[in-house]
Amino acid sequence: MQNLLSKIYNPKDLRKLPLEQLPIVAKELRNFIIDVVATKEGHLGASLGVVELTIALHYVFNTPNDLLIWDVGHQAYGHKILTERRDKFDTNRQFGGISGFPKMSESEYDAFGTGHSSTSISAALGMAIASKIKGDVAKNHIAVIGDASIASGMAFEGLNHAGVTDANLLIVLNDNAMGIDPSVGALKNYFTNVKAGKAVSKTNIIKALNFNYSGPVDGHDLNALVKELERLKNVKGPKFLHIITTKGKGLEQAEQDQVKYHAPGKFDKITGEILPKKNVIQPPKYQDVFGDTIVELARKNKKIVGITPAMPTGSSLKYMIEEFPDRAFDVGIAEQHAVTLAAGMATQGLIPFCNIYSTFLQRAYDQIIHDVALQNLPVVFCIDRAGLVGEDGATHHGVFDIAYLRSIPNMVIYAPMNEIDLRNILYTAQLGINYPLAIRYPRGRGVTLNWKKEFKKVEIGKAKTLFEGTKIAVLSIGTIGNAINSVIAELPENEVGHFNMKFIKPLDEKQLHSIFKKYKNIVTIEDGTIFGGFGSSILEFSSKHNYKNKPIKQLGIPDKFIEHGEMNELLNEVYLSKKHIKSVLLDILTE
Amino acid sequence: MQNLLSKIYNPKDLRKLPLEQLPIVAKELRNFIIDVVATKEGHLGASLGVVELTIALHYVFNTPNDLLIWDVGHQAYGHKILTERRDKFDTNRQFGGISGFPKMSESEYDAFGTGHSSTSISAALGMAIASKIKGDVAKNHIAVIGDASIASGMAFEGLNHAGVTDANLLIVLNDNAMGIDPSVGALKNYFTNVKAGKAVSKTNIIKALNFNYSGPVDGHDLNALVKELERLKNVKGPKFLHIITTKGKGLEQAEQDQVKYHAPGKFDKITGEILPKKNVIQPPKYQDVFGDTIVELARKNKKIVGITPAMPTGSSLKYMIEEFPDRAFDVGIAEQHAVTLAAGMATQGLIPFCNIYSTFLQRAYDQIIHDVALQNLPVVFCIDRAGLVGEDGATHHGVFDIAYLRSIPNMVIYAPMNEIDLRNILYTAQLGINYPLAIRYPRGRGVTLNWKKEFKKVEIGKAKTLFEGTKIAVLSIGTIGNAINSVIAELPENEVGHFNMKFIKPLDEKQLHSIFKKYKNIVTIEDGTIFGGFGSSILEFSSKHNYKNKPIKQLGIPDKFIEHGEMNELLNEVYLSKKHIKSVLLDILTE
Repeated sequence: MQNLLSKIYNPKDLRKLPLEQLPIVAKELRNFIIDVVATKEGHLGASLGVVELTIALHYVFNTPNDLLIWDVGHQAYGHKILTERRDKFDTNRQFGGISGFPKMSESEYDAFGTGHSSTSISAALGMAIASKIKGDVAKNHIAVIGDASIASGMAFEGLNHAGVTDANLLIVLNDNAMGIDPSVGALKNYFTNVKAGKAVSKTNIIKALNFNYSGPVDGHDLNALVKELERLKNVKGPKFLHIITTKGKGLEQAEQDQVKYHAPGKFDKITGEILPKKNVIQPPKYQDVFGDTIVELARKNKKIVGITPAMPTGSSLKYMIEEFPDRAFDVGIAEQHAVTLAAGMATQGLIPFCNIYSTFLQRAYDQIIHDVALQNLPVVFCIDRAGLVGEDGATHHGVFDIAYLRSIPNMVIYAPMNEIDLRNILYTAQLGINYPLAIRYPRGRGVTLNWKKEFKKVEIGKAKTLFEGTKIAVLSIGTIGNAINSVIAELPENEVGHFNMKFIKPLDEKQLHSIFKKYKNIVTIEDGTIFGGFGSSILEFSSKHNYKNKPIKQLGIPDKFIEHGEMNELLNEVYLSKKHIKSVLLDILTE
Repeated sequence: MQNLLSKIYNPKDLRKLPLEQLPIVAKELRNFIIDVVATKEGHLGASLGVVELTIALHYVFNTPNDLLIWDVGHQAYGHKILTERRDKFDTNRQFGGISGFPKMSESEYDAFGTGHSSTSISAALGMAIASKIKGDVAKNHIAVIGDASIASGMAFEGLNHAGVTDANLLIVLNDNAMGIDPSVGALKNYFTNVKAGKAVSKTNIIKALNFNYSGPVDGHDLNALVKELERLKNVKGPKFLHIITTKGKGLEQAEQDQVKYHAPGKFDKITGEILPKKNVIQPPKYQDVFGDTIVELARKNKKIVGITPAMPTGSSLKYMIEEFPDRAFDVGIAEQHAVTLAAGMATQGLIPFCNIYSTFLQRAYDQIIHDVALQNLPVVFCIDRAGLVGEDGATHHGVFDIAYLRSIPNMVIYAPMNEIDLRNILYTAQLGINYPLAIRYPRGRGVTLNWKKEFKKVEIGKAKTLFEGTKIAVLSIGTIGNAINSVIAELPENEVGHFNMKFIKPLDEKQLHSIFKKYKNIVTIEDGTIFGGFGSSILEFSSKHNYKNKPIKQLGIPDKFIEHGEMNELLNEVYLSKKHIKSVLLDILTE
């Protein structure tokens, strides 16, 4: 073993090597990624697929002076390792460790933070225009974007603008026919035809948008990549290099099962086998409760349709796609389209269940307001990964949805406390509603082993009294209520009441009046932002009805971006750990 | 004059006419639109351009059973007149009258509400898929979309999905090379080449996305249109018809000056001359204060860049585009791209002023969070048309921005009370900030004739005491403070204090503590939603600091969508008229 990688602190060292040694670096880099991810977990396939591209880009371009953006940053592990973070790479995605995505504050080599997809073209174009304005004509600006990401509308907007500029911009299309799940859509089919030589390259879509197009190039051929990038470095204006790669390249199982090895968890670094989880019976993931229940309901109710923007596996809508391929749709990374498509279906009497992660639903905010809520269409938003999400960190936490949805008229917003609640609200939604309904639930496992109970209709706008107390009323929303229950069990008996409010909107005003009349102190708790969140809706209620002398304590996500880490570490960070909740309640009890 | 139009109540009547009479209907319909808009005001050019298309579509297709969507509905006047609303058309855009946009609740012929652009493909595809699921194979689904709107990312997402379906969908591209301002971007140039016969039609972009493409067809030739639509009616799967029209067709001045005649105000229906406004000296529009000031500042500060998504005229950024074409950008209908482009520029030390209407900034919500605020980049958001906007109505009111921005960490949010405030915050922003700054200001004229004062730096987070009182503290944000001043002038002297809080975030906590210690009653007022808005931030402050027995009354936009009408009518509707504010304050004073 030559051990070249250990001598590369940053790309300056890489650039000292002769071209013929780069394949050795590639091999070592690939092994390094596999070694660490096998035990520390994280994203695997995407970074393995761009090992050669990563090396070639840093070899040819003068990073960090030349600006390099990795679109959806989970492909940037090799980049991180080659840019002064090899020694820290085993802290990847850990609390206090490096981020799983490029992050400007972490390294000067990370030109732009990229946790959500399809942003790179716009950002790189902005940088390229800035360089031109500043007279820095030699600087290069490179965006690496996958075929799933480039099909998103935002990327098209960037292309459409870039094509009429003379900005010094290079877009590298990393075409592996995959996002997290297989890519979809007409553009993906088109690129597949280009690869197969079926599309006339002189008149292709990218050229039509006024780019200098080259490729397809084998993205695992370092010689070819370096040669073509060297050539393009001297071409002015907007350029587009189409390369073909294999996601998971270099680890056989990862190449074969690209969906599973996107982020496989712990695996054997030699055989590639994913290590079995401890064989304990656990409650199901909320995702599987959704996926299983929607299929069960869809069998009986022909009006149900399912929509996911590129997350069939993550959301578990794949179960419905498998059983009802004509009624369940992966529309690609296209949140805006997903929501308005659902609105169109709803006008015709269907009941669309539109499943989008909380953080990605931010992409469709206008469509929720303008296409769904304003027309009061019965779209069911299944808002997955609401609240903190753990290791994916600041770019992925779903903490804004309560605040951004609550101000929209006509919206009904529900948060299940457990699997049975989720099942029942899905059941209730398909019985027929005449308003948009948002159901927010977290990433990961619930609390109930025996969750497949008979369906029960949920009463809209009705809270649930978990238990009464004498001094404090805790009003909770969603799964955090389970933590409250266990905290209260440790407190003096009968002093703290707990109300699962269930509906953030409409509030159960009758229940609230009864609570406000009885209790001296109110505590609200939620896994969303304090500013504008559920607690604020309780303040608004109190103010509107002129409840005086009624202290209300808001617990929730404070006004800062929350980093990555294990859930317990993050809950501690935001003062939502059981320990902290207990201390807040004790403080009030002993006031 | 044959007077055919007066006999057409709905398209059933139209379809009884022989083809050769349609040009007469077109002439009459065009005159009808001109007659009404000349005196009642409204959008003109877009609807004049599609008179023939409107007639041909309703003639060939079986509306309302066949579903027809007009993308950006301001082209739908002819459609409204032919679909049972001719007699009401003189109430267009008036309070209680018909909407200036298609609206589902107004007519079964309006298949989908379309105030924001680029939604039609997604909505029509959703309808087409629904018809397929329901087994309604004969139903047609038609989206008419302009060349400016189809360049938006959302439209691309719709095309990308539609191209891999067998949905019975017809997209009619109304190509007039115009949005409100001239269209921009690489796709627009491409369509121009298609028109000129320069692009090879066998391999064009639309065909590459798997559509059955036909055209270009002269969109003013009724015979050609009807013939081609009849043919396409029998073609299955996704179809795309490219037609060429002239915006403003049939009114010479409207054809010549398409920007001015987009919505010209009152004009002479014979000569086309726009009627002069009463020659009174008025305060400037906030838009012109922005446009004028940004140019003044850009002359001295080379770091300033300006960005608008397709609103150079409406926002008055056109002044900067004219003087500094290399530093000011119309990026087309591409709000997502606009914001991340600004973020990219900001990383390189430029100071981007990104001017977007409040209602359209909803399209870039994720980009504000993920690309700007999370990275704490100094992008200056100039949020135009914040608050109620009048005649454009529910689709265009800018009432959500305070709520949706306030929960985002790092954001600083300012609302000027007058022109001088706006000038000074623009000046302050370009002195150098290290956070994202949102400046929200309304549509229309301000209150200050002599507004071009010497610049003064605004102190961030500092409120202004307008006057002290003894009983009530009114906390206002933005231009509504001017109404408060005039209301208070009519109340018993010295009882009501008024504080212009200026910053929604960060709050001036020092000032608030002093107010909360002194005043018994607090009233908050804003032209945004009560739920989650500025008033709620005051409630959060009060709760956090445990101010007891302090009634806070929130005035703002209630939890419903607000219709169209004159501003005074709307303010009355939402209880923000001076009369209502006065009565609220009097009620508290006499409690």
